[in-house]
Amino acid sequence: MKQLTYIIFILFTLNIYSQTDEEVIKTIYTQSLTNGKSYDWLNHLSNQIGSRLSGSLGAEKAVAYTKEELEKLGLDKVWLQPVMVPRWVRGAKEFAFIETKPGKTTNVNICALGGSIATPALGLKANVVEVKSFEELEQLGKEKVEGKIVFYNRPMQADLIHTFEAYGGCVNQRYQGAVEAAKYGAVGVIVRSMNLRLDDLPHTGSMTYDDLPVERRIPSAAISTNDAELLSTMLALDDSVKFYFKQNCKQLADVQSYNVIGQITGSEYPNEYMVVGGHLDSWDLGDGSHDDGAGVVQSMDVLRLLKESGIKPKRSIRVVLFMNEENGLRGGNKYAEVAKQKGENHVFALESDSGGFTPRGFSFDCSDAAFSQVLSWQALFKPYLIHYFEKGGSGADVGPLKTDTNVLAGLRPDSQRYFDYHHASNDTFDAVNKRELELGAATMTALVYLFDKYGINPISNPEKIKN
Amino acid sequence: MKQLTYIIFILFTLNIYSQTDEEVIKTIYTQSLTNGKSYDWLNHLSNQIGSRLSGSLGAEKAVAYTKEELEKLGLDKVWLQPVMVPRWVRGAKEFAFIETKPGKTTNVNICALGGSIATPALGLKANVVEVKSFEELEQLGKEKVEGKIVFYNRPMQADLIHTFEAYGGCVNQRYQGAVEAAKYGAVGVIVRSMNLRLDDLPHTGSMTYDDLPVERRIPSAAISTNDAELLSTMLALDDSVKFYFKQNCKQLADVQSYNVIGQITGSEYPNEYMVVGGHLDSWDLGDGSHDDGAGVVQSMDVLRLLKESGIKPKRSIRVVLFMNEENGLRGGNKYAEVAKQKGENHVFALESDSGGFTPRGFSFDCSDAAFSQVLSWQALFKPYLIHYFEKGGSGADVGPLKTDTNVLAGLRPDSQRYFDYHHASNDTFDAVNKRELELGAATMTALVYLFDKYGINPISNPEKIKN
Repeated sequence: MKQLTYIIFILFTLNIYSQTDEEVIKTIYTQSLTNGKSYDWLNHLSNQIGSRLSGSLGAEKAVAYTKEELEKLGLDKVWLQPVMVPRWVRGAKEFAFIETKPGKTTNVNICALGGSIATPALGLKANVVEVKSFEELEQLGKEKVEGKIVFYNRPMQADLIHTFEAYGGCVNQRYQGAVEAAKYGAVGVIVRSMNLRLDDLPHTGSMTYDDLPVERRIPSAAISTNDAELLSTMLALDDSVKFYFKQNCKQLADVQSYNVIGQITGSEYPNEYMVVGGHLDSWDLGDGSHDDGAGVVQSMDVLRLLKESGIKPKRSIRVVLFMNEENGLRGGNKYAEVAKQKGENHVFALESDSGGFTPRGFSFDCSDAAFSQVLSWQALFKPYLIHYFEKGGSGADVGPLKTDTNVLAGLRPDSQRYFDYHHASNDTFDAVNKRELELGAATMTALVYLFDKYGINPISNPEKIKN
Repeated sequence: MKQLTYIIFILFTLNIYSQTDEEVIKTIYTQSLTNGKSYDWLNHLSNQIGSRLSGSLGAEKAVAYTKEELEKLGLDKVWLQPVMVPRWVRGAKEFAFIETKPGKTTNVNICALGGSIATPALGLKANVVEVKSFEELEQLGKEKVEGKIVFYNRPMQADLIHTFEAYGGCVNQRYQGAVEAAKYGAVGVIVRSMNLRLDDLPHTGSMTYDDLPVERRIPSAAISTNDAELLSTMLALDDSVKFYFKQNCKQLADVQSYNVIGQITGSEYPNEYMVVGGHLDSWDLGDGSHDDGAGVVQSMDVLRLLKESGIKPKRSIRVVLFMNEENGLRGGNKYAEVAKQKGENHVFALESDSGGFTPRGFSFDCSDAAFSQVLSWQALFKPYLIHYFEKGGSGADVGPLKTDTNVLAGLRPDSQRYFDYHHASNDTFDAVNKRELELGAATMTALVYLFDKYGINPISNPEKIKN
């Protein structure tokens, strides 16, 4: 009986290797859309575990759960890679209002930015100065800023088609806003949420104090876009309105956490590593379904789909679920550091960290020669409406793996809805569409399959590259 | 003062005509994303008016509202085109259950199919025979079908990337199911909802009795996908379970309704007509935001965006909001009939009736020569991530306008989520993303601009076609 199973397995394997790339990729997509695991995994991660901020109980549970699930897949190896991570806690829910005159207040929706200090226990109330840029802030100078709350209100640019570009054009307000405002003696910072929609949800995200001494650090919060509009209107009518906010967050000592790693060892080039990954941590307001639960479960499913499709990779394929992308990137840095120490040759790494929306293609961080090789595979993706192959960035977690010769890539899903949910309380399971998620997992698997099969000049087997 | 305005207008117009196509298209997209009207119009249509089934008060209000809004745009002409439409009413909400033994019942979610007759006043209870195809039904024959309810349970095929293809592979169960079941003496029809998701919502849609005499017509309803699975499982355990349903729908006499039409008259070729449109009617369960409120407001915005972008078309551009696509196509047929009577030369027609999702491209129903002309414009759409230009169908309402030489087109948005909402109670305004809707309107406007500017061989000005 064992022998029969073995013969069937051999026949099945031979069958896969006699299939054309078109046929193998069709199998991958069909598997993902009819027999995918990503959506079920995400359901558990989002609805049973919930948010997974670094150092939280949720993050700890997510490490245990994903390790356990990877172990069920029959991979060659599954392990945890220790990494120390920062631990910031929000504490009791924030509270804020605009005061037009004593006793006349309008509540608004805010949330502390990740890494911010708390306000004084009774909260902070001050006049507000609204700016759209650091230049504007500088022009106002100490005279007009000191003792006030700086309100950064430059909206995301709606006419940019890639919403990540619009994000890139605004996010310095959130990340660097406190450092800049503190220079001129501001007592607090309120930042318009990074959201293209007008709604009531504040969007958190990381901020820095750089090397600002503790006594000069000021509390920073995000305000919903609707309330940013309201505050701006009120200030235009009367610039003496005051803003009050109270937040209770705290930076605690670093704690032990882990990257979760699973591996299928390569049959021909076991010392060439290919990574697929996403980040296991999330912000704490929603359950991090799009950011980046989606990337986590898609990456896990890449290894499962390879196996289910009967593909036996020549190179070692690793799924890496990185810890602490959101507020530290410790996991990504640790993984690259250990890889370097061990002299592991990482020829390829692909990250999914742009939401679980319909995949449109990939962005590649690689040489022109490698990119033209990649482009030769583009036609294979057309039946799945994957048209977008561009040079560009990859992903924050895999970035530290960059070398002169390897290929880093990022899955590029449709970005129109991403910032409706990003870092906000509505980034929840119901915002993810099963098919869109599964198409992403299949698209990633297909790229991994091709890269493993053909490699990229000048890596190990150029003789096998077929254009 | 009037003269100054006139001079400014001339300068503005000259400016547009000195712009490159890239610049004009950029203006169109920027206008739509920063100053679009489509989302506000859809908000009113969905939330103030609601569902718009042909012959309903909602449909009547929608005619009045859209006419009024088009009149505000300063078009050259806005009018109503009379058309008689069928009027089917659902009546009181349907009720259904599965009965495993007398008194032991499980309620399930159904809705009458559009055009169906009611059940008897006390409802209909019978044994059930489940089939996946008409062939299977035929094999069972009268002996096994007579006196029973036929349960069509062939699911949409999840591994097809174009979900409309999966719909096409199933919808005969809904449309033709009653006629086929009646042949073998069935007393009712229950059809699995045309939905790729497993959920509790029944999806309505049109069905026919062909020329079946009134006394042989049988009531037909859709059941939610979750309940279809449940019913199938229960039948597998015990094929003597009974199904009960009661529905109260009714076909009334035809009533007067209208297509709503607005026109910008062409400056050089006023007798060449280009149509953009969607259908104003919807099913009655949700508010028809995706099907086809989205197409209606996008089409309206095409004419507004042309004006706002300073484009003065050479050909006459018409927006046509068709009545009765869902259960009769009377509006589309009437428009083509009147156009033929008047000898109007319709060189182009574009329909948006696939939901308000991120636009991916267009499908073109035209000659190979015309298609290669169209393909020469493809690069202009790449910056907006519009990659999909394929030959194929256009839209149900514009279909009757087809000639040997003209070009019909359909906007092709991302289709993954469409059937989650299609004809169901969750096809509501909140399911539409503002940016996705606006990108669609801009994409349509850009195509209309190019077609108007360059025309297509062999229409009027081949000398002006530049590849």
